[in-house]
Amino acid sequence: MNILICGLGALGIVFAVALKFAGNSVFGITKEKYFESLKNKPLKIKGLFGQKEAFLDGIYVKPQELIDLNLDLIIVSVKSYDTEKAINQIKPLIGENTLILLAQNGYGNYEIAGSIVDKRKIILSRIIFGAKINEIGFAEVTVFADDIVIGQPDNLIPSEKLIEISHVFNKSGIPTRVSNDVYAILWDKILYNCALNPLGAILECNYGSLAEMEETRFLMNQIVYEIFNVAKANEIKLNWPNADDYLKFFYEKLVPPTAMHFPSMYYDLKNGKKTEIDSLNGAIVNLAKQKIISVPINETITKLIRAKEKLFYKN
Amino acid sequence: MNILICGLGALGIVFAVALKFAGNSVFGITKEKYFESLKNKPLKIKGLFGQKEAFLDGIYVKPQELIDLNLDLIIVSVKSYDTEKAINQIKPLIGENTLILLAQNGYGNYEIAGSIVDKRKIILSRIIFGAKINEIGFAEVTVFADDIVIGQPDNLIPSEKLIEISHVFNKSGIPTRVSNDVYAILWDKILYNCALNPLGAILECNYGSLAEMEETRFLMNQIVYEIFNVAKANEIKLNWPNADDYLKFFYEKLVPPTAMHFPSMYYDLKNGKKTEIDSLNGAIVNLAKQKIISVPINETITKLIRAKEKLFYKN
Repeated sequence: MNILICGLGALGIVFAVALKFAGNSVFGITKEKYFESLKNKPLKIKGLFGQKEAFLDGIYVKPQELIDLNLDLIIVSVKSYDTEKAINQIKPLIGENTLILLAQNGYGNYEIAGSIVDKRKIILSRIIFGAKINEIGFAEVTVFADDIVIGQPDNLIPSEKLIEISHVFNKSGIPTRVSNDVYAILWDKILYNCALNPLGAILECNYGSLAEMEETRFLMNQIVYEIFNVAKANEIKLNWPNADDYLKFFYEKLVPPTAMHFPSMYYDLKNGKKTEIDSLNGAIVNLAKQKIISVPINETITKLIRAKEKLFYKN
Repeated sequence: MNILICGLGALGIVFAVALKFAGNSVFGITKEKYFESLKNKPLKIKGLFGQKEAFLDGIYVKPQELIDLNLDLIIVSVKSYDTEKAINQIKPLIGENTLILLAQNGYGNYEIAGSIVDKRKIILSRIIFGAKINEIGFAEVTVFADDIVIGQPDNLIPSEKLIEISHVFNKSGIPTRVSNDVYAILWDKILYNCALNPLGAILECNYGSLAEMEETRFLMNQIVYEIFNVAKANEIKLNWPNADDYLKFFYEKLVPPTAMHFPSMYYDLKNGKKTEIDSLNGAIVNLAKQKIISVPINETITKLIRAKEKLFYKN
């Protein structure tokens, strides 16, 4: 396959190296500031998907240089606050047979991408393994919770096509399966992240502490109740009949294995980086506003994270 | 006057030294852990009320040793979470002519004290100067915003008696006036502290930053709106006809001179001390519950502060 990876952060590097190592043609788009460090050396990964390195077939800053490539797949692995920019950037590269796979966090990526390009081109995914950058061009896969799930939320892509892509991923060592319920499965991860990520960042503590204290349990429960209300009003199908069923699973099955984990937002704020709050609790607030529903806990938490982002640059 | 100071923290020391230096008989009650450091040396103050030192007429841990003193005034200057314990401790010392002055922060001190001793014995105060402990027994007065205001919320003490006490304070260099509206005036300070104190502690920033950012302005506005609702439902008379009038005054007059100030809760949390959240936003949450009113922003903020208190001891 001819594959372009848009965004060579931790996740993009994992895809790029694994897919190239398995024999595909792989190209990358990166930001100008990383280009010099990336262009003349192999990308490397280590960790749970093995130790591998590979020279890509080309790394670019401007996508127009890629216009004559006959791309089969474009994997969008930028942070969700850059989705709109990335989709506009790759739009000219989309040929008759090109599919786009959104490999991102949170709510809104499919909606944004679908407003710019034909939804029949867009595959959504739920990625629940974790990777971190050890140095520019070198990523480490540190946790693996479940296969990647890919699918077309509105069933606009033939399943053979999706299965073909999952085979390419599996052959390159990235466990992947196809599902008609990718949207609901992605929402499971949104629920998990909305409950844990910002509170862990505000309180600077791990997931286990959040689940132990009655105060943070109360807040996480409220966050989840509010999200179920919002999902219902927006006719978003979740995997769970009600919030209590989800919360039982959350506290019993999801939190314990990740109890020592500190959220990505915690590290983002420590490092003065923008967080993904806008595609998590911030997205809930927006969905609530559209239906004139009140989500005060999600709103308070969202404002606190945005204030923390601003304060880093002030201080 | 024969005066007992219950609690020799920063505020208690300021009262003790100023009143003793001016010629009153002054006794002190302190916690056992501070007793050895305090008993055989003069207490000292410096700062805005002058540089003074004085040996008290006695410092005690157990109040029964004071039982035969004919006390005119007992000043309760413990943190508000210790009010109940302090009032029970001093109860046996209250003679026919003894009055109790509550010199504390937040809501609930008058209510708690009034449930243990006769309200006709209790004077409420609003204290809006700030002092800090430089070392045990040595306090510095660092800010002075306005006179102490003293009064009996239910007008149960003759005004001559209150004026007499205010004269004693003024003669000792502590500017003090009497008001029939002490309750509403104290609520002004509660509003100010509820809006600024916990947010500054959670975000680790000063009051000026809180007033600058739209996110924290939104949260402070919501906190104040919720408090006005709660006050109305509980028939608590505030100094302001509505929240917007207060907020205008708050942003234009109250915050600018204290823009560089970090809240006491910020220092409490840094030092692993209990905060006064229960007599501020936590008290609002309780007042709201009694009237089945929802105050989600105050509740979220309260839970976050309580979680921060717990995390200090966990880590």
